[in-house]
Amino acid sequence: MRHPDFTLTAGPTMASPRTLAALGEPITYDYDPVFLERFRALEGKLAAIFQTKADVVLMQGEAVLGLEAAARGLTRPGMKALNLASGVYGKWFGLWLAEYGADLVEVEVPYDESIDPADVERAFEEHPGIELVAFVHSETPSGTLNPAREIGRIAKAHGALVIADVVSSLAGEELRPDEWGLDVCVAGPQKCLAGPPGLSLLTVSDAAWEAIRRNPHAPRGSFLSMLDWKERWIEGGRHAFPYTPSVVDVHGLDGACDELLELGLEESIALHHRAARATRAGVKGMGLELWAKSEDICTSCVTAVKAPEGVAVLELLGLIRERYGVMLSPGYGELKERLVRLGHMGPAARSLYPIVALSALGRGLADLGASVDIGAGVEAALAVLSQPTRAAVS
Amino acid sequence: MRHPDFTLTAGPTMASPRTLAALGEPITYDYDPVFLERFRALEGKLAAIFQTKADVVLMQGEAVLGLEAAARGLTRPGMKALNLASGVYGKWFGLWLAEYGADLVEVEVPYDESIDPADVERAFEEHPGIELVAFVHSETPSGTLNPAREIGRIAKAHGALVIADVVSSLAGEELRPDEWGLDVCVAGPQKCLAGPPGLSLLTVSDAAWEAIRRNPHAPRGSFLSMLDWKERWIEGGRHAFPYTPSVVDVHGLDGACDELLELGLEESIALHHRAARATRAGVKGMGLELWAKSEDICTSCVTAVKAPEGVAVLELLGLIRERYGVMLSPGYGELKERLVRLGHMGPAARSLYPIVALSALGRGLADLGASVDIGAGVEAALAVLSQPTRAAVS
Amino acid sequence: MRHPDFTLTAGPTMASPRTLAALGEPITYDYDPVFLERFRALEGKLAAIFQTKADVVLMQGEAVLGLEAAARGLTRPGMKALNLASGVYGKWFGLWLAEYGADLVEVEVPYDESIDPADVERAFEEHPGIELVAFVHSETPSGTLNPAREIGRIAKAHGALVIADVVSSLAGEELRPDEWGLDVCVAGPQKCLAGPPGLSLLTVSDAAWEAIRRNPHAPRGSFLSMLDWKERWIEGGRHAFPYTPSVVDVHGLDGACDELLELGLEESIALHHRAARATRAGVKGMGLELWAKSEDICTSCVTAVKAPEGVAVLELLGLIRERYGVMLSPGYGELKERLVRLGHMGPAARSLYPIVALSALGRGLADLGASVDIGAGVEAALAVLSQPTRAAVS
Amino acid sequence: MRHPDFTLTAGPTMASPRTLAALGEPITYDYDPVFLERFRALEGKLAAIFQTKADVVLMQGEAVLGLEAAARGLTRPGMKALNLASGVYGKWFGLWLAEYGADLVEVEVPYDESIDPADVERAFEEHPGIELVAFVHSETPSGTLNPAREIGRIAKAHGALVIADVVSSLAGEELRPDEWGLDVCVAGPQKCLAGPPGLSLLTVSDAAWEAIRRNPHAPRGSFLSMLDWKERWIEGGRHAFPYTPSVVDVHGLDGACDELLELGLEESIALHHRAARATRAGVKGMGLELWAKSEDICTSCVTAVKAPEGVAVLELLGLIRERYGVMLSPGYGELKERLVRLGHMGPAARSLYPIVALSALGRGLADLGASVDIGAGVEAALAVLSQPTRAAVS
Repeated sequence: MRHPDFTLTAGPTMASPRTLAALGEPITYDYDPVFLERFRALEGKLAAIFQTKADVVLMQGEAVLGLEAAARGLTRPGMKALNLASGVYGKWFGLWLAEYGADLVEVEVPYDESIDPADVERAFEEHPGIELVAFVHSETPSGTLNPAREIGRIAKAHGALVIADVVSSLAGEELRPDEWGLDVCVAGPQKCLAGPPGLSLLTVSDAAWEAIRRNPHAPRGSFLSMLDWKERWIEGGRHAFPYTPSVVDVHGLDGACDELLELGLEESIALHHRAARATRAGVKGMGLELWAKSEDICTSCVTAVKAPEGVAVLELLGLIRERYGVMLSPGYGELKERLVRLGHMGPAARSLYPIVALSALGRGLADLGASVDIGAGVEAALAVLSQPTRAAVS
Repeated sequence: MRHPDFTLTAGPTMASPRTLAALGEPITYDYDPVFLERFRALEGKLAAIFQTKADVVLMQGEAVLGLEAAARGLTRPGMKALNLASGVYGKWFGLWLAEYGADLVEVEVPYDESIDPADVERAFEEHPGIELVAFVHSETPSGTLNPAREIGRIAKAHGALVIADVVSSLAGEELRPDEWGLDVCVAGPQKCLAGPPGLSLLTVSDAAWEAIRRNPHAPRGSFLSMLDWKERWIEGGRHAFPYTPSVVDVHGLDGACDELLELGLEESIALHHRAARATRAGVKGMGLELWAKSEDICTSCVTAVKAPEGVAVLELLGLIRERYGVMLSPGYGELKERLVRLGHMGPAARSLYPIVALSALGRGLADLGASVDIGAGVEAALAVLSQPTRAAVS
Repeated sequence: MRHPDFTLTAGPTMASPRTLAALGEPITYDYDPVFLERFRALEGKLAAIFQTKADVVLMQGEAVLGLEAAARGLTRPGMKALNLASGVYGKWFGLWLAEYGADLVEVEVPYDESIDPADVERAFEEHPGIELVAFVHSETPSGTLNPAREIGRIAKAHGALVIADVVSSLAGEELRPDEWGLDVCVAGPQKCLAGPPGLSLLTVSDAAWEAIRRNPHAPRGSFLSMLDWKERWIEGGRHAFPYTPSVVDVHGLDGACDELLELGLEESIALHHRAARATRAGVKGMGLELWAKSEDICTSCVTAVKAPEGVAVLELLGLIRERYGVMLSPGYGELKERLVRLGHMGPAARSLYPIVALSALGRGLADLGASVDIGAGVEAALAVLSQPTRAAVS
Repeated sequence: MRHPDFTLTAGPTMASPRTLAALGEPITYDYDPVFLERFRALEGKLAAIFQTKADVVLMQGEAVLGLEAAARGLTRPGMKALNLASGVYGKWFGLWLAEYGADLVEVEVPYDESIDPADVERAFEEHPGIELVAFVHSETPSGTLNPAREIGRIAKAHGALVIADVVSSLAGEELRPDEWGLDVCVAGPQKCLAGPPGLSLLTVSDAAWEAIRRNPHAPRGSFLSMLDWKERWIEGGRHAFPYTPSVVDVHGLDGACDELLELGLEESIALHHRAARATRAGVKGMGLELWAKSEDICTSCVTAVKAPEGVAVLELLGLIRERYGVMLSPGYGELKERLVRLGHMGPAARSLYPIVALSALGRGLADLGASVDIGAGVEAALAVLSQPTRAAVS
């Protein structure tokens, strides 16, 4: 089959020419002075994007590495941990906490809803002694968003540490780790930053470091170790890596961050919001249904659409990919066959990419005999895209 | 500081224009049919380069991930394991085995020597019940090579499984996992393949899989898990990844493998041998000393040179990098300040790259006042490089 | 302003990632054996794309160089030459012929029509002694196509040589220089081949060479000389260039040709036809008017749309470029302010690029207050794009 | 054959990764606002590199186009023109002047010498009425330099216009068009700028424009026309190109200029001087002979070496290219078989590239049985390269 013309998925998403150029730069030795300086500067750029004063750690594997590292680093057998599960990823995280020995408390909601802060408050009241809260900011598998600010505030009020999976929300949604009390945030470069997968981007508060240090079960001398980065890299004066970093991914992420910072973080978030709003308008205009129970809880990075009755998702996406050269995402995990997900992250949040995704979806459905009003959908989406980013968002 | 003009290090090493172009290709969704097919085909190419019929597993982090995964996957608390330590990496591996609970037997030699098969034989005799043997084929930190074939043969004769760290030997040294009885080999793309760091390339024999499956301590549902790849990816028909692969690194490695296979594996090995021989001739011609006790045990990927008395290695390399734009490697670990390492891997094993490394080293030493016969060194190296690859090797 | 997200113009058009990678390859010496061989092979690839057995000449400047070279090479003062003008480029060519001294006979039609072969036949009858006929196959400025086959046949019947400007038709329209009697064809790489501008691609029949050789006014020892290429490069055994070729453009064109040949010439033409048909359906569906008097004479490379009453073309295109990141073309020459041109060449003839162009145009018009049925247009275009290339074309 | 590892020729020369990345950027429409702005800014960058306040014109074909355009633009039949020929290119230029009707006066010296200003003064005295002087600053074919400052001064004193071929001297030698009275300078991007070939970079004084305008024979409405650029592009407010520019070459040149300007023009010139001095030291150290009669007249871009008695230049260079992957240049024109030329331009003027060229030449000669002291040559060259750029130059 031919290469895709458009990658409008839930991620990895399409990268900009600038990021691709950075990926194609000469590979350097990791201890080359230019690379060392670039790595250090990149941490600073990420801190600006995270809007944090905490340490930024670049673990050298895709975001699941950072998530596992955080879970292992902060979980002690027997500690009481609260997991908030509103989607596939949130649910999985709870399994990890339990596996590493936590005494797990879970707030779970159907995957088309988001966490209600009142439930979090209630969990703390019903289960005294919770030391750790974990949640997913943007549930990529179902296109929903959780109220990070409120969750963080409640956890802080109860003295608990917080792990936030912000894999797909960084640069697409407002995020304030320091103000909101998110001790460990884990993001991925291949979502709204539109960089290469292959890295985990973490912020770690002093309290989190302290807890990890005190945790005898926290990985040390391991690919999974956050502490190795703290002790060898950060505290060593940023002269020595715990192991060879992924030079190429670092180059690419650096290019992506430069591009983002020139655009402006606020503008990036506004663009993602507008693209999401346009996509939702298009989906509804076509006569299709959003997966999320309410538009208010939709994330800005990806829009999850219910597959119409009788349509086989994988067949549909295969047809769209082959006939139109457009790659969209199915659902994920248990939702795989029930959803189509239209990504609008990074460059795909700009310009008319949402129209491409909507047209592909609409026409693909029509090709399978489904009834869909493509024209109305495209017009509704274009009406949103014609607005200035701010206006479109508010 | 300016970007380096030449990266002639112990790795990551310089990549070819073709590999860089592959790294700069559009990022695709990991479930795009073109990516899936490319990933599968890449496993086949790697099997050809490994000359194995065993499973090839691409773990998505630099080689240390694969090494840790293999150690954790195969180590059971209390099992008797033999570690062969002839260098920094070999020594470290033993620490892992011990940490994971092995009853460790160790054969250790000074780091300028290589393992004597007779010592391996003796260890088996003196310590009945050894189930696992671990060794490093090419010790990049000290530029030495261990007798993989003999070690494998002895281990097999005693029914032990073998983990071979072939990180820097793949494509630079002869390697026959199946014939030699190396159950798990772990290579890195950023050495003789001259690809991006960021991946671990493993071969896994059926016996190794069996042992890992039976090991309740083997990582499962983890970034460190080999089993996840076996069960989800391989046995699932190669349709589903355990987590998002590093699309960009995969593209780059694919380009590097294509280039290698067009060149021919044998020719690649011959080129590395010739470059190493030329470099050694140059080092000696300049009046410097090789680190290895004997040229017979020198590896083809990197040449370790003793820093002359009174020369501060890091100062020397800094001067060479700044004044001549050439990046060389110091020693590693405890050898850091005692060695200079000249890399000749991938493209750097071709053409006159060894002359660049030698000239830079020689002139840098002269700049610091050391006495060195650069001309004689360069001439000696060129005399080797002027020979056909085969002739130069034998 | 930001870089464009989509370049859907009358050319230069967007290039594929593969072509861009070829452009970014290391620059080589023009007499490097690899470059020489590549240059020679490229001539063969172009001959296949031109479907000719005649000489292919790559002049090293954009297509206007080849056109001027052909006009100068074949025009003798006082010779009778017939120019067929159905558009801006055709008209200009006649000016050249006259400037170089030809006794000019011209058949001219309004720029929204195409040449009627009967007029050509009549011109020959009314003006005996015509030795040269010039015409434009695809008039990019107005999106119209002339009947190359019939024009060639008539010219041959009267013993005249033919210069065909096929700048934008090569690989998008059927073209048979040898069968149709087109002695000199001049194409550009930056249209349906989707390569870099910067080269002129010529085919030259033996009869044309003979005429040029006999013409004392034909450029010699000049950047404008076709003969220099014949004598120095071709007849010299393809060892010596008349001057330094544009190495980078040659690399890029080579990549573009490889891509085209893998796709297949016929499929390329079919794709361009389908894209053009979809675009026209979209334009009409939106309630806009095509410039061409009849769809039968529309070219496959670009669709010219009449700007609605009261819409300032440059303001419209400026808005579309800034707000949607989509670059479209205005008219050209005297038609500049009257037309919008939607390009669908090379990669832009595939996938949903025509939808992007149509949506941008439609929404841009709506933003300016024009009445346009975007939804109907998009649906009509998608209906064409959902058909197999063959079916959509016929 | 494999791609070259090193391109150390008389040009096109190797480009930097940054320039290659610029070449691989997306191709844009020539009237895209971003491209227009970039083109305009590039003219400004070139003016800074030329150190001129005169107009800069980028003609869209390799330097020979600009040279022919200048010769045609400024030559009137019957005008008295002085041509200074100290090499192949200078000699050729005189042929053009004569062809276009000039009453030619020529000062010619053997090709291993440079023009003596006294001869220029004498020519003016002996041939009153000279209106135009033409000379080559850096004769790439023979590696010699002419005294541009003095030539310009004398010409100005006599009221003559000056055309200077600075194709290979720009950014490698001091050049002051305005102060020295060089009315038209023509440079190439593929020499010391290390950009792509495919463009001519001209500076044009007001006096030169005036003369061209008054010249009825100056090309107009032609690919060879400088006036088209003046009237359509410059005087039109830089909104309209006379024809489609070579977008890709423009991108690449822009990248190359950015790199140069960050380095600094003075530093660039100093680097070229040091590299040339190192190369000459190496050549002599090996026991070979420079072509130029005196080192004082050697150009900084390329070093011409006499082929030792009995050595066939093309055979030698073929062997070096095949065995060592290094591409060097033979002589050019009538000197083709007598010289080897080692290029040191752009990136090749940095780092140890001169050592690569020298080693390749020396060992290649040794392979053919010639007697050559490679070691001494390399040492001598390294001794120069170890000096700071300034010190090495003075």
